[in-house]
Amino acid sequence: MIMGMQGGITVHRPYQGRLFAVEIVNRGAVSREVVRHPGAVLIVPCLEGDRLALVHNYRVAVNQRLWELPAGTLEPGERPDLAAARELEEETGYRASVITHLGDFYTSPGFCDELMRVFTAQELEFVGQRLEPHEDIEVGVVTVDEAMAMIDDGRIIDGKTIAALYLWMRRR
Amino acid sequence: MIMGMQGGITVHRPYQGRLFAVEIVNRGAVSREVVRHPGAVLIVPCLEGDRLALVHNYRVAVNQRLWELPAGTLEPGERPDLAAARELEEETGYRASVITHLGDFYTSPGFCDELMRVFTAQELEFVGQRLEPHEDIEVGVVTVDEAMAMIDDGRIIDGKTIAALYLWMRRR
Repeated sequence: MIMGMQGGITVHRPYQGRLFAVEIVNRGAVSREVVRHPGAVLIVPCLEGDRLALVHNYRVAVNQRLWELPAGTLEPGERPDLAAARELEEETGYRASVITHLGDFYTSPGFCDELMRVFTAQELEFVGQRLEPHEDIEVGVVTVDEAMAMIDDGRIIDGKTIAALYLWMRRR
Repeated sequence: MIMGMQGGITVHRPYQGRLFAVEIVNRGAVSREVVRHPGAVLIVPCLEGDRLALVHNYRVAVNQRLWELPAGTLEPGERPDLAAARELEEETGYRASVITHLGDFYTSPGFCDELMRVFTAQELEFVGQRLEPHEDIEVGVVTVDEAMAMIDDGRIIDGKTIAALYLWMRRR
């Protein structure tokens, strides 16, 4: 199936899934296989006393629980700041009065277009987690120093969490 | 096509590509769509005078040139440290005498199992780039402070590069 052609570029879509699609992009003799992803939001939830809320989340793709900053996939047409507020509340139970855009990055641009939009959440009020039936997410509150120690000793091995904590530390 | 079943888990593989595959993992009523990736290496190339070598690389997936640390996909059975040395030399033209493992992280474990293995490269000698015909990679040498400024002002928006520079700064 040929999806489109522009300036000598042809695009085929051999896989269309629920979350993402796979495209083959051909330009001249060069062919690249890429994942088309709707993008995601990631939240740095800031609590009093220089503390952060993390989630401990079972990840099917890597068959283990990982410590991560809360995050979630953007729904079609959804405003990223509102998605960040929604995901924060669902996953951690905290409702934020202030959501601030911190920056964006691509998670793995060698083969995937997923753009991660990073937000800081402040003035948090606990209203209770709202997980979907298949979600199994534990919340952990750590100091910033503890979060850094978890990166140092390999307890945090989620790249988006490491990158976002670095952006946050540079800009706070 | 059912690929396997273990402990109530069934795995289907609707797409098998050249670089990666897509699997649907079903466990009970829960179904997850995941990308199976061979993993990759990323190199922090350290030059004299507190300088780093970066690459400016056209990325088809995001249709732009990005500033990144050199990186590449693992070939089947390849030792990650040797892959790091090979990718560094091909992409930047620098041959390293010392390659040191710095840490690992998952780039986007919500849907993909790509593990990024991060290495420091030291005692570099310039021997010349060896690009493949389709590669279009410019090398830039910057100070550590310049690299930090490029993250701060959004010139570096590659998440693996941001995460790896943070690991490197914590551990050097």
